[in-house]
Amino acid sequence: MPYVTVKMLEGRTEEQKKALVEKVTAAVSETTGAPAEKIAIFIEEMSKNNYALGGKRLSDE
Amino acid sequence: MPYVTVKMLEGRTEEQKKALVEKVTAAVSETTGAPAEKIAIFIEEMSKNNYALGGKRLSDE
Amino acid sequence: MPYVTVKMLEGRTEEQKKALVEKVTAAVSETTGAPAEKIAIFIEEMSKNNYALGGKRLSDE
Amino acid sequence: MPYVTVKMLEGRTEEQKKALVEKVTAAVSETTGAPAEKIAIFIEEMSKNNYALGGKRLSDE
Amino acid sequence: MPYVTVKMLEGRTEEQKKALVEKVTAAVSETTGAPAEKIAIFIEEMSKNNYALGGKRLSDE
Amino acid sequence: MPYVTVKMLEGRTEEQKKALVEKVTAAVSETTGAPAEKIAIFIEEMSKNNYALGGKRLSDE
Repeated sequence: MPYVTVKMLEGRTEEQKKALVEKVTAAVSETTGAPAEKIAIFIEEMSKNNYALGGKRLSDE
Repeated sequence: MPYVTVKMLEGRTEEQKKALVEKVTAAVSETTGAPAEKIAIFIEEMSKNNYALGGKRLSDE
Repeated sequence: MPYVTVKMLEGRTEEQKKALVEKVTAAVSETTGAPAEKIAIFIEEMSKNNYALGGKRLSDE
Repeated sequence: MPYVTVKMLEGRTEEQKKALVEKVTAAVSETTGAPAEKIAIFIEEMSKNNYALGGKRLSDE
Repeated sequence: MPYVTVKMLEGRTEEQKKALVEKVTAAVSETTGAPAEKIAIFIEEMSKNNYALGGKRLSDE
Repeated sequence: MPYVTVKMLEGRTEEQKKALVEKVTAAVSETTGAPAEKIAIFIEEMSKNNYALGGKRLSDE
């Protein structure tokens, strides 16, 4: 606790995801006062045919 | 905003999912007053071995 | 099933939310083939101090 | 209703997941009074490179 | 980990919710092998005007 | 996109939540390459009687 979920399009590299969890954990710890070791992060990756904006999926653009 | 998540069993065709996001976006825009281009839709597809009703997974029926 | 979650800012009227669930259910049923009586909708309402875009909460604008 | 989501690391066997939904459904029914046939369970499985604790993904340990 | 979310209508007593988390934690631990102290449970309570089945909110029935 | 959800116990101040969304948005933008203005953050606050660890709610400790 806190529990952080980051939902984004698939395609980021492992290096980007590694940096993402490091930096987001630091940001949450610094601003909420929660110790870093209690902060969990879940990355959820979406494909372009399961995400739509304005009624159109990214895969249909 | 609004953000809509549709969780359903896998197996729908791309044509069905394309129509789904179009019609749902229109329904949300019409009834909430939000402009269509601000409405995001996420489709989450479940497999039958990760969904249970009444204590039994669909894959076990 | 399907299960639909609509996350939006608080402030819509009961009439708007009543219409929202009717129209969204019809849209999902028509496009996925699921019978309407199996479609569940959850409305989640956010306050402006718990939602941010571009690093700024709506309540801070 | 109720709707239960169990998020866990991938790697459990089908037998474990089958037992999981049986036992959790019974526990929810017994304690809430909801009939078992109304209780839905969703299993969400995470990979080790999409889950972090303390700023480090399990796949990086 | 695992992380369990139980979404249900508001109205259960504190005693029911206390028993719910005890029994669900035991069920998850027994079937997945995860130690009980690592299992987190979130209860999310819905009001009848934010939940619909078959296109009709419970508060409109 | 990305969409970030931070689930935590209630009790943080408005100043803490304001800083949280600023710092998390910067961390996500820097590491994923997404422009800050496309990043949405949702804060979900739990009460101690709806969160349990090890089968015991925080409100029961």
